[in-house]
Amino acid sequence: MPSSLVAQITAMGQNARAAARLGARASTSVKNRALEASAAALRRDRQLLLDANARDVAQAKVHGQDSAFIDRLTLTEKSIDAMALGLEQIAQLPDPVGEITDMARRPSGIEVGRMRVPLGVIAIIYESRPNVTADAAGLCLKSGNACILRGGSEALHSNQAIARALLEGLHQADLPTNLIQVLDTTDRAAVDILVGLSGLVDVVVPRGGKGLIERISQQARVPVLKHLHGVCHTFIDASADIPMAIKVADNAKTQRYGTCNTMETLLVHQAIAPSVLPPLAEQYRAKGVELRGDEATRKLIPFAVPATDTDWETEYLAPILAIRIVADLDAALDHIARYGSQHTDAILTNDWVNAQRFLREVDSSSVMVNASTRFADGFEYGLGAEIGISTDKLHARGPVGLNGLTSQKYIVLGHGEIRGG
Amino acid sequence: MPSSLVAQITAMGQNARAAARLGARASTSVKNRALEASAAALRRDRQLLLDANARDVAQAKVHGQDSAFIDRLTLTEKSIDAMALGLEQIAQLPDPVGEITDMARRPSGIEVGRMRVPLGVIAIIYESRPNVTADAAGLCLKSGNACILRGGSEALHSNQAIARALLEGLHQADLPTNLIQVLDTTDRAAVDILVGLSGLVDVVVPRGGKGLIERISQQARVPVLKHLHGVCHTFIDASADIPMAIKVADNAKTQRYGTCNTMETLLVHQAIAPSVLPPLAEQYRAKGVELRGDEATRKLIPFAVPATDTDWETEYLAPILAIRIVADLDAALDHIARYGSQHTDAILTNDWVNAQRFLREVDSSSVMVNASTRFADGFEYGLGAEIGISTDKLHARGPVGLNGLTSQKYIVLGHGEIRGG
Repeated sequence: MPSSLVAQITAMGQNARAAARLGARASTSVKNRALEASAAALRRDRQLLLDANARDVAQAKVHGQDSAFIDRLTLTEKSIDAMALGLEQIAQLPDPVGEITDMARRPSGIEVGRMRVPLGVIAIIYESRPNVTADAAGLCLKSGNACILRGGSEALHSNQAIARALLEGLHQADLPTNLIQVLDTTDRAAVDILVGLSGLVDVVVPRGGKGLIERISQQARVPVLKHLHGVCHTFIDASADIPMAIKVADNAKTQRYGTCNTMETLLVHQAIAPSVLPPLAEQYRAKGVELRGDEATRKLIPFAVPATDTDWETEYLAPILAIRIVADLDAALDHIARYGSQHTDAILTNDWVNAQRFLREVDSSSVMVNASTRFADGFEYGLGAEIGISTDKLHARGPVGLNGLTSQKYIVLGHGEIRGG
Repeated sequence: MPSSLVAQITAMGQNARAAARLGARASTSVKNRALEASAAALRRDRQLLLDANARDVAQAKVHGQDSAFIDRLTLTEKSIDAMALGLEQIAQLPDPVGEITDMARRPSGIEVGRMRVPLGVIAIIYESRPNVTADAAGLCLKSGNACILRGGSEALHSNQAIARALLEGLHQADLPTNLIQVLDTTDRAAVDILVGLSGLVDVVVPRGGKGLIERISQQARVPVLKHLHGVCHTFIDASADIPMAIKVADNAKTQRYGTCNTMETLLVHQAIAPSVLPPLAEQYRAKGVELRGDEATRKLIPFAVPATDTDWETEYLAPILAIRIVADLDAALDHIARYGSQHTDAILTNDWVNAQRFLREVDSSSVMVNASTRFADGFEYGLGAEIGISTDKLHARGPVGLNGLTSQKYIVLGHGEIRGG
């Protein structure tokens, strides 16, 4: 790696570390003022943003990017408004920093509790979705963290334009502009250096496809808060209410195809399969969902194609659904433990014991009873905006909002106590 | 690496993963029965343990290990009792698994909350302290986790003898013996393989010296819960009560020299230094503590030797103390931010504003007012036993007890709700 690039990225890390100390002690009102001023600047600079974005979009088209890519990259009047509104909504969320919990007096006389504090410096690596620049920076700022943002190179001009509005917000609130730094080199080596800055960067949040996340997890020398993939299951238990099961299983698959909390595999108890699968399959067929089933499923749904072992572990992100008929709850639990991605899994049942077992025994970041997997989302959970959904087990599991960008330290209030005294 | 070793360690990981599912759903009473039966087996097998340990100690002496090493390695009647008692105390701690918190109804109708669940498979790598085998296994079992233990090779026979007692406890409680596996190869490559078992091992806890921990952090492909080092500070503020400051600063340094929460650097406000330092220094001198001071300190303590920059970042673990006189609270905060290890830092003060600023602004796992840094400890904090003290920021900070070996997943209780419905 070129030493000048190492020096440049290291300096960003040092600047972020220094700014983080000031961000951690900034008052709620100062942080909110910065968020609101940034939102105002985004609205005011709407035309500048659209122009910068048009350059990126034109370039991406020249590079032959597909229409889904262009969609994600494109800013509109509406999406700029949504970004500004997002920052204002973050300003309205409660400030997590400084919360003190669990204070208790110990036999020695000291009082011990925990105080919520920012993580410090957060590096966010994402693909060519310019709106992430504003969302991620806003969440980091509100939670008292400094951030270093590295968006997809195809969105460079858009991100720079958004960053200018964010920096103006910091400036107006008298906060150090190094609280939000945008890495504007398109050199991929820069990311490798950034995620190796142990001691300067406290956590890396990769947002994007599986390839990006795996590459960063491999490279990182600092902790990674990551979401690998979502192979989400719905299990229709023998006792499920059939109209409810059809409604929920349909929603879990078809409300949106491309999201990580979309159901990818449907498990059905053998006792209820003959009643629930045919009408449900008709509903999927009407919406153009391709069904892939095991042998038992294909006896009930003649138009289902055979599922292979690969299907059980595939996140389609598309109108395709794998279906398997299982003998009982234990078989469903085994299937999920073996093929699942510990993201979100749901049971549809009217059986108390089975519902309780499913809730306890499925080791996923969200486990649901009688609800659509599509609810696994920061807004739906009441966290406000989310920086992502974590399928890791340490620190934050599931949707990660402001609290997930903080940590808790111990505080001890004494009166001159000594140990062994 | 030899492929047979890879196969062997991978099989242990797979066995642990399978056992972890059963450990996660074991009832509190079953887990407690295993802990109590293990304790009984340790007491009953006292002589077997002493014999096995004698072999290890003899071998270590042949290898020329120093007396501190031999001390840590040696088991006595008393230390075997302490191990057994430790397991019984863990049995008496509340079971963290299954705790449900923060349930709230959302506008969509779903109820969302969090359930505390085991992490899964925990690998613990430690040096030649046989008592860690029982402590660590007990904490992992009570928190519903499977563990793979890899102790120092010099303690091999002792660890195997302890492991037999633990396995007997599992057996008596009808729990799978793969919940506690002891890696009994002395091949260092085994550790590298173990900490690379992404997907099979959920977290690695290295316990030991800085070298061990740094090596494992470098190798690990799974998250590491680690404690690097403890350069702990006490800052005597201008307004501190002088007798209290002398008592607490003395305790923080001299109650035990070799622990990570021992004070290594004393910072003193320039206004109080002439009154507090001379009598405090006399007290240290009487106990044989070598003092290393900056220039201002040496004017007040003629027998202090000059401190260098290296002293400010050294964890002595010995009767040596670095002393620096600072201009004010901000200088103390800057010193701690620059040289500290984010372990434990204390302010001794009678100033409300300074106490509050210190509590908020010092970014360490434990921050104290008017108490000895020696209190940073799981027992003193009321956690019961601890698996270690984490200086990481993600997940658990500070002393890590049973809760630190668990995670929280989201649970959603629905009534047939669908998204966008």
